[in-house]
Amino acid sequence: LSGGAPRRPGEFSLIDAFLAPFELDRGGVARRSYGVLCGPGDDCAALRVRPGMQLVATTDAVLDGVHFDLARQSPEDAGYKALAVNLSDLAAAGARPRWLLCALGVPPPQPRRPSERPSLLASRMARGMAHLARRSRCALVGGNVSKAAQWSLTITALGEASRPLSRAGGRPGDLLVLSGMLGGAALGLRELLARQPGRPLAPRFARAGPPDPLRAQLCPTPLVDAGLAAAPIASAAIDLSDGLLQDLGHLCARSGVGAVVDCALLPRLPAVARAEATSARSGAHPYALSLAGGEDYALLFAVRPRRLGALLAALGQAGSPGCPIGRLVREKGIGLEQAGRRLPLPPQRGHDHLG
Amino acid sequence: LSGGAPRRPGEFSLIDAFLAPFELDRGGVARRSYGVLCGPGDDCAALRVRPGMQLVATTDAVLDGVHFDLARQSPEDAGYKALAVNLSDLAAAGARPRWLLCALGVPPPQPRRPSERPSLLASRMARGMAHLARRSRCALVGGNVSKAAQWSLTITALGEASRPLSRAGGRPGDLLVLSGMLGGAALGLRELLARQPGRPLAPRFARAGPPDPLRAQLCPTPLVDAGLAAAPIASAAIDLSDGLLQDLGHLCARSGVGAVVDCALLPRLPAVARAEATSARSGAHPYALSLAGGEDYALLFAVRPRRLGALLAALGQAGSPGCPIGRLVREKGIGLEQAGRRLPLPPQRGHDHLG
Repeated sequence: LSGGAPRRPGEFSLIDAFLAPFELDRGGVARRSYGVLCGPGDDCAALRVRPGMQLVATTDAVLDGVHFDLARQSPEDAGYKALAVNLSDLAAAGARPRWLLCALGVPPPQPRRPSERPSLLASRMARGMAHLARRSRCALVGGNVSKAAQWSLTITALGEASRPLSRAGGRPGDLLVLSGMLGGAALGLRELLARQPGRPLAPRFARAGPPDPLRAQLCPTPLVDAGLAAAPIASAAIDLSDGLLQDLGHLCARSGVGAVVDCALLPRLPAVARAEATSARSGAHPYALSLAGGEDYALLFAVRPRRLGALLAALGQAGSPGCPIGRLVREKGIGLEQAGRRLPLPPQRGHDHLG
Repeated sequence: LSGGAPRRPGEFSLIDAFLAPFELDRGGVARRSYGVLCGPGDDCAALRVRPGMQLVATTDAVLDGVHFDLARQSPEDAGYKALAVNLSDLAAAGARPRWLLCALGVPPPQPRRPSERPSLLASRMARGMAHLARRSRCALVGGNVSKAAQWSLTITALGEASRPLSRAGGRPGDLLVLSGMLGGAALGLRELLARQPGRPLAPRFARAGPPDPLRAQLCPTPLVDAGLAAAPIASAAIDLSDGLLQDLGHLCARSGVGAVVDCALLPRLPAVARAEATSARSGAHPYALSLAGGEDYALLFAVRPRRLGALLAALGQAGSPGCPIGRLVREKGIGLEQAGRRLPLPPQRGHDHLG
């Protein structure tokens, strides 16, 4: 007897390279400790959702040239961010991450650029993703590889929650509490795009140190523990991927309310405050980055006033302190204030994913 | 108060267009009858897996120019196939489809081609996908939209099974049973590629009539009922996406066995048998399409000999009769026979997704 062996060195060596940082292989060791009964080396993963828990599911894609830029940043950080943006959605639902599936789009190899060999890039992307997966106790259980015009990572993240938070549930009178920082990712994007392409930055996902704009852009921290801590207390939640104003607008629309935000209370990195002050001197909105910057992956909660103390205590203990930044009101629309005075809305309010 | 309304007409009108065929909107009506507690108009979907059931998950992407070709076929059929290939994976696990998430890659609009307006194409893709989703009682619960260099549909399908089938579990002596037809999709691809680009075919996904190669290529039927019927009886299963030889190789590898296939027993469309006979006259392998054609989305089961009758009866009642085509053996590798005589393996054994 002969043959039957796979004859697809390209695809299979890339899959092996991608799986290695997850300590997996195509043989597909089932990890019972993660509730994985079968996968990823099969057609499907079989998973055990714990009794009493709801399954919480989300999908998000990141693409080269759209959400990351391999000419300027490391594939490790791109892989990290692909998972981070999905875990941020689970965090907003107050769900505990459990499993992920990842579909890779892989462009043709470019023989002149051996450092961009597809299996090498895939392995480096997986390194960043696996780091965050391990830290979040989230197991890779499935995936797909396809030829494509550009690198892409489309992740579906699955989690569990006994009582998931949603955008609906806010009421007039609820207070708005923000966990995380605003504007840093947008400022970091400016820094990134100002760099010459062709000399990508070293990976930052595992680097220690205080938060800075470039890190907020390249490897945002999904606030999973904050979401878990807030789930039993908050009335509604959303993660800020498209800018505070736009995402607050979604929460308001689903909850059937309006909101007033006090800009003086918005938590910003010092570099963001400085950049906004500089732009304001040439006529820009003084909170343009914080209000509409996008990609912050902070969490915005609505909470009944009597539960504010409990929410702030829980967020503090989860390591992601909350800032009260405003309130929900009956009248639709979003109003801005600063120390009691009305502020106009900035002209740009968010991010168009097709723009 | 003013503003806060989304200012992304492109993205939101495309999402609306995509959701309409599913009878959904961004308001996100929760469909309790489908076990959907929340979604798709939220960060996450919250889903209820039934007690005693395992969650079965798979992800698969289809891309324009790789898995479908909008210059030659309809967007409806592309959307249909995107879901069909995922449901075929659930079928191989013997799982009941329940939910799907769909990430769309959307290329920039081309002002000169109004018939290719992104929201129109998205709506037409959704029409094909929603048709199959409805028929399979599978609810759209989440998604994502991103700018991309080419159209792509990356679906994660979620199902339930009390005892999922996997590729492992086959033993020497098990019989191989195939449900579905071989080689049609590969022959249909030849037909499709022989057509002039720029005059795409009308949608076929909803057309009645006997199976033919073009339909096998454009809108394969996922054999969900066959998978459900076989789940309590078969010892292992795989769906045939990359060609019988390659996928049987996966089943053998995971089960730690080899296999012998009797080519005279392979179920083929008459057009496939004719095409193989013609090619064989110029020296090609007489079963090249059936053995290595790919994209058949037939199901291959291994079954203990004493349960063969039960499996064939169950498949027949499910409307997808099974053909015994060979057996698993102790010696590794795959051997081919025809009416008791050894046949060589074809030189090409499957499909490289990066090729």
